[in-house]
Amino acid sequence: MPKPGKSTSSASRIEADQERKALTRTKILAAAVRVVAEKGVTTAVIDDFIRAAGVARGTFYNYFRNTEQVLEAAAQWLEDDLIVSIDEVLAPIDDPVERMTLGMRLWLRKARGDRAWCAFVARFRYHGSLVEEVLARDIGGAVRTGRVSVPGPAVARDLIVGTIREAMGRMSDSTVPIAYLDDLVRAILRSLGVDAEWIAAALDKPVPAMPRKPRDVR
Amino acid sequence: MPKPGKSTSSASRIEADQERKALTRTKILAAAVRVVAEKGVTTAVIDDFIRAAGVARGTFYNYFRNTEQVLEAAAQWLEDDLIVSIDEVLAPIDDPVERMTLGMRLWLRKARGDRAWCAFVARFRYHGSLVEEVLARDIGGAVRTGRVSVPGPAVARDLIVGTIREAMGRMSDSTVPIAYLDDLVRAILRSLGVDAEWIAAALDKPVPAMPRKPRDVR
Repeated sequence: MPKPGKSTSSASRIEADQERKALTRTKILAAAVRVVAEKGVTTAVIDDFIRAAGVARGTFYNYFRNTEQVLEAAAQWLEDDLIVSIDEVLAPIDDPVERMTLGMRLWLRKARGDRAWCAFVARFRYHGSLVEEVLARDIGGAVRTGRVSVPGPAVARDLIVGTIREAMGRMSDSTVPIAYLDDLVRAILRSLGVDAEWIAAALDKPVPAMPRKPRDVR
Repeated sequence: MPKPGKSTSSASRIEADQERKALTRTKILAAAVRVVAEKGVTTAVIDDFIRAAGVARGTFYNYFRNTEQVLEAAAQWLEDDLIVSIDEVLAPIDDPVERMTLGMRLWLRKARGDRAWCAFVARFRYHGSLVEEVLARDIGGAVRTGRVSVPGPAVARDLIVGTIREAMGRMSDSTVPIAYLDDLVRAILRSLGVDAEWIAAALDKPVPAMPRKPRDVR
């Protein structure tokens, strides 16, 4: 028989349960990133992830079915973690075109600076939900300023995401000059119809450091 | 003791041997494409490829070490096969910018028209050697016309290849309107600094059929 005054106990139990699940998932993802940093993506097996996470085998399989699934989730988790750090820098900026420009510059610098991160994240075609959300918001905002003209948001998204992923593939294989990064951003902004003078001025500004350091893979 | 008049026999034996090897490799690749069409990429195992190719297990392993390797080679083989068909259409065209434009339009139409081909080819990050060769040649030629301005050939290549691969990912998951294809080409050409009026006129021309039908995956 339920005791009086305990009517919310069921709801709070569900909440506590969800929180615990999210914590366990994060623990597994963080362990997966450590495994990738140590062993590389191709040689890691499912036991490595289970051991590094310090969870029971059954617990692991409650969250992920196989190696590929935990790796993809870990890569998306790293992407979203970077977006949190980038978004902190972008917070005081109102202009969506400026936000997009600085966001791409910060993303590409992280990719160039941490090759293991870059190679790992670039392997997967689907992206973190925060990445897609922030991108869709800023593309929408940029179009509304009238300074960007694209045939549709899908074209703009695919051009931005595809170009950056291809660049990340290149940076996984070799060291690129730092100028390559802003050259890419310039080409992307030009494809969106942004004014050339505005682009030149925007890329002339220094790239600020991220106060919140994003997760590494090393 | 070698017979007189047979001094070239060693060279022609090597040649015949190389030809036989190339034929066997092609046989395995064609079989791999059939397997992918029937079973999909993720469920096919190495025995499926060996059985479909009708070669001995040992022969197969002379060419490929594992499933991933034969799949990647098959995807690159399909890409290069499409390039042969596209190049035939482009042969009478001298202007490299026009060649590039029509090449992208033909490539994207093949991708949209054969979803299994599109999904299979888009899985792999490395491309057919003909793809890279033709692309490098036409980017170089386009820059020399002075009508294209890019900070460097790497940026142009990564933007073209990355955008098209991302678009192929989208087309693997869903049906896109036909207008999406030329919208992409427009955005890519704009990023290369091509004159907007020229782009509009080029995209107004109909896309010719390819006399040599490229290989399907179905």
